[in-house]
Amino acid sequence: MIDAVSVITAKRDGIELTDAQIDWMIDGFTRGAVADEQMSALAMAVLWRGLSTRELRRWTMAMIASGTRMSFPGLDRPTVDKHSTGGVGDKITLPLAPLVAACGAAVPQLSGRGLGHTGGTLDKLESIPGWHADLSAERMRTILADPGVGAVICAAGADLAPADRRLYALRDVTGTVESLPLIASSIMSKKIAEGTGALVLDVKVGSGAFMKHRADAEALARAMVELGSDAGVRTVALLTEMDTPLGRTAGNALEVAEAIEVLAGGGPADVVSLTLALAREMLAAAGLDGIDPADLLADGRAMDRWRAMVVAQGGDPDAALPRARHTDVLYADRAGFVREVAAFPVGLAAWRLGAGRARQGDPVQAGAGVEIRSGVGDSVAVGQPLAVLHTDTPAAFAGARAALADAWTIAPERSAAPRPLILTRIG
Amino acid sequence: MIDAVSVITAKRDGIELTDAQIDWMIDGFTRGAVADEQMSALAMAVLWRGLSTRELRRWTMAMIASGTRMSFPGLDRPTVDKHSTGGVGDKITLPLAPLVAACGAAVPQLSGRGLGHTGGTLDKLESIPGWHADLSAERMRTILADPGVGAVICAAGADLAPADRRLYALRDVTGTVESLPLIASSIMSKKIAEGTGALVLDVKVGSGAFMKHRADAEALARAMVELGSDAGVRTVALLTEMDTPLGRTAGNALEVAEAIEVLAGGGPADVVSLTLALAREMLAAAGLDGIDPADLLADGRAMDRWRAMVVAQGGDPDAALPRARHTDVLYADRAGFVREVAAFPVGLAAWRLGAGRARQGDPVQAGAGVEIRSGVGDSVAVGQPLAVLHTDTPAAFAGARAALADAWTIAPERSAAPRPLILTRIG
Repeated sequence: MIDAVSVITAKRDGIELTDAQIDWMIDGFTRGAVADEQMSALAMAVLWRGLSTRELRRWTMAMIASGTRMSFPGLDRPTVDKHSTGGVGDKITLPLAPLVAACGAAVPQLSGRGLGHTGGTLDKLESIPGWHADLSAERMRTILADPGVGAVICAAGADLAPADRRLYALRDVTGTVESLPLIASSIMSKKIAEGTGALVLDVKVGSGAFMKHRADAEALARAMVELGSDAGVRTVALLTEMDTPLGRTAGNALEVAEAIEVLAGGGPADVVSLTLALAREMLAAAGLDGIDPADLLADGRAMDRWRAMVVAQGGDPDAALPRARHTDVLYADRAGFVREVAAFPVGLAAWRLGAGRARQGDPVQAGAGVEIRSGVGDSVAVGQPLAVLHTDTPAAFAGARAALADAWTIAPERSAAPRPLILTRIG
Repeated sequence: MIDAVSVITAKRDGIELTDAQIDWMIDGFTRGAVADEQMSALAMAVLWRGLSTRELRRWTMAMIASGTRMSFPGLDRPTVDKHSTGGVGDKITLPLAPLVAACGAAVPQLSGRGLGHTGGTLDKLESIPGWHADLSAERMRTILADPGVGAVICAAGADLAPADRRLYALRDVTGTVESLPLIASSIMSKKIAEGTGALVLDVKVGSGAFMKHRADAEALARAMVELGSDAGVRTVALLTEMDTPLGRTAGNALEVAEAIEVLAGGGPADVVSLTLALAREMLAAAGLDGIDPADLLADGRAMDRWRAMVVAQGGDPDAALPRARHTDVLYADRAGFVREVAAFPVGLAAWRLGAGRARQGDPVQAGAGVEIRSGVGDSVAVGQPLAVLHTDTPAAFAGARAALADAWTIAPERSAAPRPLILTRIG
């Protein structure tokens, strides 16, 4: 007979769990028969002992089985999605989804809100007047099937891997977030359940990312690629650098504005380059060869899709984006070249300015955030602006400035070669 | 700023907790500000990473500080208590407390009910008609101060280390019972808080005990002796063997009857010998030298105390003890000498017969249990009774017989030398 204590003690003692034990535990947790305190003890034991490949696969499948697995049977195009493990200034989804849709794929992206310093895609999009994240499954299918739209970025329904939703909330308060198999199964259970046919993972590594070390990020990427492939989802991962913020902005409306610049054929080089690299991977995974996404950025077709996508979810693509009521400027106190802008302090400052939330359900400020004026490689003079801080709550400036105290490294010479943004490809 | 997640993650990552972190966590848990799922994650992290001597001391003190620390200021005699980590047939407290009181010490024993295969002292005493375990602190003091009684065995009040009570219930359902520092702090917080001046620990080791390995039992004993001494309680520990049940009975009324035999100057040799050894340690720890407890067993003074003690808690020492309605006999299927009677199966059989409980709050049967008729060293013929099983619920016989299937080892020759009961002394 299986009971919660015997499953917890087995994992605690380093014994591999059986399929039946994993199924029983996740199902019991979903139904409420396994108590939160039991699941959190198991989560800590998993963090300690790990999960074997077989255990991880079963655990992920049990998470998926806790809810409904979506599918898009009537669609005439391949589906492909992207997931990023989260980085400062990571607004790539915003230009990427319409770009890939314009290239002929359907992009069914279920996304989340931010908790912590990296911000959430839905929070960013919600700064667009009228735009809303909650769509019925039926409406989602309609938008995806619409040849003029074909991409949707929306909140996951309550029935998508509900065990993962509960477990994630529990991990967040019990110090059990940092478990590779629990991270992998959390991401992949949702992505597999959302019904995409192909998936490209952007696994961030660096001081501003969840994974600080390359070896950890590679192990996570490999585990996720294997989980996706096992479940019949063509999955590849790019490991990308996250010591430096992506682009020049961290915040909600600030990042939307930057994404629109990219869609208009401009924007920061790193954002453009990562958007194109991920688009190429997505198209390859979807079996759409021979299309260069750079052409669709250049000729405005990606921008057209963006506008259609915003409209399909109630937004007004022509409305002015909200701006924060107060700004403050951070100036350089020495001359030289910007050698480094540290991602984590920038994310923390944006969070403190009001772009992020301390607790689930808290509101975020649409206009708050950090706008980088002097980025890596730029030359600066004393008194030149390094960044502009935006907020509706000027009391937050002090905390943001404190976070940014050592964020800029200014050296007498320009650095020899910039570090590569894409570190490796797995899959 | 301290918060639950930072404490959990520190321990998880093997970082020593500060005094402030430990105090904050235990206090928060007591007040309900730290959730059960957070405490269970911390308990698993403690099981994984351990506690340093300093952490363990602080943790124990925080447990004590979660409630009231008792004291006996007006008493004209030294106080001394005994605690056993639990073994099959361990009824030693029953003859020991009145014996040590008769020798001139006061014995303020707060005890527990059984959960699992070893039975609880209060369950045993409750088989005496009229006897009750719940006493006010005032009534407890009065009985202790009474020169004709001087010993009390009662349930701990709700205000004695309440954090431990809650944590113990949590550990029981989250696979975190088997942590040496958590076991040590649980036992010692209650014993220090009960206000005894001296303490003798009976740490059981063997297949029928919680600690299966001598090294673990020694480490636990050392940790507890150190905790007691640090808190100003003169503490020593005896490591005693628990591969074999103590005495000839496992059950509630059955064990009371055996205890009364010992108090009457008879009883099984192992029970008498351990009772006397622990009594000598208690008297030495209490500073009462020059008294041989064997004399008080022989001349009936210990029995007089027992009777006074039972009366003081509402019991009738002359009432017949309850007997189970049904018995069944286990017979030897081969001739020879009993080489071994395995403690765990005997405890499990007694539990299945109704002597123990599956869940907190379940009732127990007063008369149920196992009565060993052929013990270690006895010669047996084919068809001779090995044990008599007692229960009110005859459907339980099958499960008890199954538990006992391999409990007796019968060999052609008598074993050369019996294993010693007392393995070592620590303190």
